[in-house]
Amino acid sequence: MIAAQRALVQSLLDGVARIGADPPGITREAYGQGENAAMALVAEAAEGLGLACSTDAGANLTMRWAGSDPEAPPILIGSHLDSVVQGGKFDGAAGVIAGIAAIAALQASGFRPRASIEVMALRCEEAVWFGLGLIGSRSLLARLPPGALELKHARSGLTLGQSIAGCGGDPARLAEGLPLRDPQQLGAYLEVHIEQAPQLIEAGQPVAICLANPGNIRHPRIRITGEDAHTGLPHRFRRDAGLAGADFALALERLWLEEDRAGRPMAATIGRFHTLADRHAMTVVPGHFELSLDLRAYHQAHLVALEARLGAIATEVAHARDVAIDLGERSAAAPGAMDAAIVAGLAAAAGRLGLAAPRLNSPGSHDANNFAAAGVPTGMLLVRNANGSHNPREAMETDDLIAAIGVLALFLGERAA
Amino acid sequence: MIAAQRALVQSLLDGVARIGADPPGITREAYGQGENAAMALVAEAAEGLGLACSTDAGANLTMRWAGSDPEAPPILIGSHLDSVVQGGKFDGAAGVIAGIAAIAALQASGFRPRASIEVMALRCEEAVWFGLGLIGSRSLLARLPPGALELKHARSGLTLGQSIAGCGGDPARLAEGLPLRDPQQLGAYLEVHIEQAPQLIEAGQPVAICLANPGNIRHPRIRITGEDAHTGLPHRFRRDAGLAGADFALALERLWLEEDRAGRPMAATIGRFHTLADRHAMTVVPGHFELSLDLRAYHQAHLVALEARLGAIATEVAHARDVAIDLGERSAAAPGAMDAAIVAGLAAAAGRLGLAAPRLNSPGSHDANNFAAAGVPTGMLLVRNANGSHNPREAMETDDLIAAIGVLALFLGERAA
Repeated sequence: MIAAQRALVQSLLDGVARIGADPPGITREAYGQGENAAMALVAEAAEGLGLACSTDAGANLTMRWAGSDPEAPPILIGSHLDSVVQGGKFDGAAGVIAGIAAIAALQASGFRPRASIEVMALRCEEAVWFGLGLIGSRSLLARLPPGALELKHARSGLTLGQSIAGCGGDPARLAEGLPLRDPQQLGAYLEVHIEQAPQLIEAGQPVAICLANPGNIRHPRIRITGEDAHTGLPHRFRRDAGLAGADFALALERLWLEEDRAGRPMAATIGRFHTLADRHAMTVVPGHFELSLDLRAYHQAHLVALEARLGAIATEVAHARDVAIDLGERSAAAPGAMDAAIVAGLAAAAGRLGLAAPRLNSPGSHDANNFAAAGVPTGMLLVRNANGSHNPREAMETDDLIAAIGVLALFLGERAA
Repeated sequence: MIAAQRALVQSLLDGVARIGADPPGITREAYGQGENAAMALVAEAAEGLGLACSTDAGANLTMRWAGSDPEAPPILIGSHLDSVVQGGKFDGAAGVIAGIAAIAALQASGFRPRASIEVMALRCEEAVWFGLGLIGSRSLLARLPPGALELKHARSGLTLGQSIAGCGGDPARLAEGLPLRDPQQLGAYLEVHIEQAPQLIEAGQPVAICLANPGNIRHPRIRITGEDAHTGLPHRFRRDAGLAGADFALALERLWLEEDRAGRPMAATIGRFHTLADRHAMTVVPGHFELSLDLRAYHQAHLVALEARLGAIATEVAHARDVAIDLGERSAAAPGAMDAAIVAGLAAAAGRLGLAAPRLNSPGSHDANNFAAAGVPTGMLLVRNANGSHNPREAMETDDLIAAIGVLALFLGERAA
């Protein structure tokens, strides 16, 4: 049994990794050949287990193991099969495969579920294709932002609506703005995902139980305006936008470290941080600076508090440096708190398997955020992974995934009974 | 007399400002039509005063008022007529005009010099045309760096050698590496220049006596290398090159402020300060960062000490952030200390005219640096100027320039007697 389960997992991991191979990494475009072929591969495996496969209006794939009680709210297990450009083998794919393998394990044990268990391959989780992520779960739960169906695919140039239609979905149905599945009729949403940071490497544990996925506040283009000046200008006359940027970034970092020490985890990432290529020069004090900001935290109230601190920091730096700071456009995503009963149930299952399974906040956001935000009881397992994600060096041991599959199957055996 | 002097100054200021007018600023290309036409205009005025005009092998213009003693070392008064792109009306031009006007004033007073007084319009002071500045005085004193004659003009594309030849100079003569004028045979070099910072505006004084021009150490491209990472990566795992850049910049600023407080004036300018446009993104912790550095001070020993501090700061930041910092290419220019006797003489002349004439370090480097470095006794007067230089908003009052001309003429009346 263990050998058969391992063989299934390994053959699916290897099979999916061959699709979209783009050495040294993996590139599987959302709504493209790579995602479609990976969906076909897992669907074939699911059909081999007797699951019923279907495509919804968002072109998501659902693989359903029917329960004995048609009235019992189904349990969904989801993740995704698209990747970033030159990504790794496990981000997304491991979670879909874990769902299928957990069902195989339950079947092999002779278990028959009362509630249906449905494994979903959700479309376009990665934000690189349309500048918007988690699209499959947004489609399913009517959480697409206005205008989303008109966004253009970074490679094909097709709109999201056209892309969905091309994969057998129904964008007109999505445009109605109604959920494809009523969240109140879903018993749970579960997701297995590689961890996107090395916390489990550090802890020496194969599996963690997720407490929450972060929400974020993003400012893609914060502009700082001081005054371009001659290199010889004494310090007291300068209005240096670059040094104001440095102050701003380090003030946000101090805030982060204070919050972490106070037990309020967050992150502040400044990915773009730059003087302007069309005007900066070695002998000019920079009067213009731009930066992006991704501020993430695990509770809505915390995000609200952080946003107030962000505003105060901008005001302080602007005053101290005699510059203007324009935070510019803002977007926000809600945090996804995991369901306390599911966290407890997953912990109990892990304990029975002898796993310490630390409880961790997820570094990244996931489709689980949308289910949690829609009120579906949600849980996640994170699997140990070296070297982060979104790069070809992602490294997950199959044994660690199998440990997660064991926890998931044991939990499902109770939850779906 | 005062009225005639003012009329001459104003007509030359206005005439030069019309050449290269490029609203809202002034653009006079070195070795181009603008610089040539401005030279012709001032030469015509000089000839009207009976000065003998000639062009040297560097294509510099010399306007000579012959002294009565051919053995007396001549006194040079220089500045430049090129400008940056969209510069102001006074940077350079005011100094050449001041030299001519001082001679006019001395002539009107009936003075006859023992030593010759020569006003020079030195070519290509601005670094924007060839990425190298002070070229006229470098040509004169054999201080061109190796390969300089092969540098390409930013607009015409001609080499420096071709540019000089095209203006009547002799690049083959310069290639010999010998000075066009023996610095030991020069009695003094004097320069009037607008201040490039608002220190005189702040002091409420029209004229300052310069104590020294800064030398510099420059690193055009310092590279910081950490590791690109997922936004979700906890702080303790990050190797953020952008935040390392912020640390580095602010450490240099603290050094600057400490040195200033300790009475050791300097400046540290980071003009280019940026993540990399081809790889940065809002959701990626930046693993790569670049910056330029211009470190300037007024004494060679101070620059040596600052360079040691720079190295220590790079080492500290690299260690604290777990990044590599490569300072890359380095260039250096020597500080130009003014001659103590000339400083005293200019101060005495200013005093007799009722001017407080504070003694200031020049914010910028000037052709005077090359004369001082070559051992020529050198002095400078700085003229009050709002809004800095290298921009169209430079603002000098003609009365302030006339005050400087008065000091210069009075000093020449003693020094050339």
